Amino acid sequence: MAEAVAYDTTDVLLATVAWSRISEPGEHVAGALVRELGPVAALDWVRSESLQPPGMAPHVGWQAAAARWRPRLQALDPRRELDMIRRRSGAVLLPDDPRWPRRLDDLGDRRPMCLYVRGTAGVAEMTESAVAVVGARASTAYGRQIARELGVGLTDRGVTVVSGGAFGIDATAHQATVSQGGRAIAVMAGGLDRLYPADNRELLEQVIECGAVVSEAPPGTSPMRQRFLARNRLIAALSEATVVVEAAWRSGALSTARHAAELLRPVGVVPGPVTSAASAGCHRLLREGVAICVTDVGEVMELTAGAAAEQPEPYTQPGLLDGLGGNEARVLDALPVRAVAEVDNLVRACGLSVTETLAALGLLEMGGRVERTGSGWRRART
Amino acid sequence: MAEAVAYDTTDVLLATVAWSRISEPGEHVAGALVRELGPVAALDWVRSESLQPPGMAPHVGWQAAAARWRPRLQALDPRRELDMIRRRSGAVLLPDDPRWPRRLDDLGDRRPMCLYVRGTAGVAEMTESAVAVVGARASTAYGRQIARELGVGLTDRGVTVVSGGAFGIDATAHQATVSQGGRAIAVMAGGLDRLYPADNRELLEQVIECGAVVSEAPPGTSPMRQRFLARNRLIAALSEATVVVEAAWRSGALSTARHAAELLRPVGVVPGPVTSAASAGCHRLLREGVAICVTDVGEVMELTAGAAAEQPEPYTQPGLLDGLGGNEARVLDALPVRAVAEVDNLVRACGLSVTETLAALGLLEMGGRVERTGSGWRRART
Repeated sequence: MAEAVAYDTTDVLLATVAWSRISEPGEHVAGALVRELGPVAALDWVRSESLQPPGMAPHVGWQAAAARWRPRLQALDPRRELDMIRRRSGAVLLPDDPRWPRRLDDLGDRRPMCLYVRGTAGVAEMTESAVAVVGARASTAYGRQIARELGVGLTDRGVTVVSGGAFGIDATAHQATVSQGGRAIAVMAGGLDRLYPADNRELLEQVIECGAVVSEAPPGTSPMRQRFLARNRLIAALSEATVVVEAAWRSGALSTARHAAELLRPVGVVPGPVTSAASAGCHRLLREGVAICVTDVGEVMELTAGAAAEQPEPYTQPGLLDGLGGNEARVLDALPVRAVAEVDNLVRACGLSVTETLAALGLLEMGGRVERTGSGWRRART
Repeated sequence: MAEAVAYDTTDVLLATVAWSRISEPGEHVAGALVRELGPVAALDWVRSESLQPPGMAPHVGWQAAAARWRPRLQALDPRRELDMIRRRSGAVLLPDDPRWPRRLDDLGDRRPMCLYVRGTAGVAEMTESAVAVVGARASTAYGRQIARELGVGLTDRGVTVVSGGAFGIDATAHQATVSQGGRAIAVMAGGLDRLYPADNRELLEQVIECGAVVSEAPPGTSPMRQRFLARNRLIAALSEATVVVEAAWRSGALSTARHAAELLRPVGVVPGPVTSAASAGCHRLLREGVAICVTDVGEVMELTAGAAAEQPEPYTQPGLLDGLGGNEARVLDALPVRAVAEVDNLVRACGLSVTETLAALGLLEMGGRVERTGSGWRRART
């Protein structure tokens, strides 16, 4: 029951756009089929009556999948989607395009069919060094402060900031980035004909000016719930690392973190007060071992750079004894704060031998830390 | 060159007290020697001129150690220390005492020689279920609030609260515990003749009333710097788990955490704002993998109980679609908020087959979530 269609069904671009319309984002059966047959032959099979795709093993799932795709295929003319994106100065990137961000290939069969892009900067080049900064819509002033600092700090370091364009943390991260002239990428859940949410439209236009707004959904697609969850995998996949700034116990930002972890990309979370519900999801990720704690942009950079581990500092408080050898510190610590100490008493107080005590006193004296008096020793007056 | 001494040098208690005076806390050479020879024979050897202890391998370290212990031994009469602790209604526990807290044995050669105790409750019994709550002297109102909640919450659950008696977090945890009639243990760095810091004396007297104040240092010992660090290992060793509430980047509380980790005891830290210097040490422990994040007393209890892992909740926001099957959620999500949808349009919008869409609509109708209208379906009015 092949249908008559008005467009060229042998065109790879049109077939790919059609696939982006008839399959749901991240639907791996569609991804596997298109990978095996290519978009044109895969679409030919959907139009056919055959029980399974040519060369593929029989499986009841093929008919179930085709039954989902056919209703959408009937009403479809992908030239309309192409026209809609081009009228907005946008482009469609296919996976074999040199402008395609190669990081997305790590998604395997859940890789997008194609990527709709509106923007002035190349997505492939921008994502060579990119960090996702995501978080709760219901953010606090604390969280927005951190998102701002990360947006500014990553921009200072030439790193692209990826986020989801939502209210709260996402918008603050985008805002900080564009205000610094940095490179921003906003990943939408719906089509790029309608920047969502509408109240962030002006901000998203700025992101288009200095970076890109992208989506795997063709123009005309509304941002439904499951598309937000699928969109989160793209935020994670486009970025070297993902940082969650604030997230409630059940926040969409947690799914971004989990996608990043599944891709074996580093995940950082910014902790907050345990009394703040807006940080509960961050602490949850820490407890579940999905993420590591980051407290500033330097620590975020360590997620990406594989920076050499720093020499751990000692777990001791700074003070009087800093920089002294062990025996000198013991002797100085044992000297009374104001009184003069005889050597015998000092030896017993510090627990060193007479020889060790005298040697340490000599070094401390050379360093100007102690003074001899008539019958003993005292701390030098500073 | 054995000296004449006034006390019975064959008495194990007196010899142990002498060891607690002449060795520094946690000095493992002393611990190993006393473990091998017993305190009496070990002390006999220190008094002797022999190059190494009987039966031990020659090592240059023996003479160096003896040269540290001998000056202190000369002036010592351990009956004085015993008298000082007994006059304060205190006791000395030796490792073979049934009242000895067995957890301390995990310290090996760094186990205390003995434990000086002032208190009304048995330390062994109290530490069967005990958690250390420690933190910075320079605490914030946030940190003290958390310390208070943990002190109260652990007391509610019959758990002893161990801490160091210092200002800030330690004092707040002790205070919360005693105010609830809970069981508190304060571990001192110096001798129990002088409760330290002096401004916390009243609080520490209350700890004695409903728990115990303990030290490995004999009466008359001043709380020197290195003794605080050594004391921290006792806080960790007496407790099933250690929780750091607030700690600056270089805080003594971090050494307690590290001691606990070395003993393979669980370490929890309470996160805080990354803008607070008083939480920087907590975040450091998280980043170094020494500790795990805890946000309330329930999570602290999980550190101790080895509680069964909870079923992880999904990373999704609560809302309209909760409790629905996947297809029902997709169909309901695809239904316009107010308008009526034809089945054909709904099928394309949700991306399911006609059969799946109709089945989901039937279930949603039974649940009262959707209604049929003349030509289509709409969301039920709630």
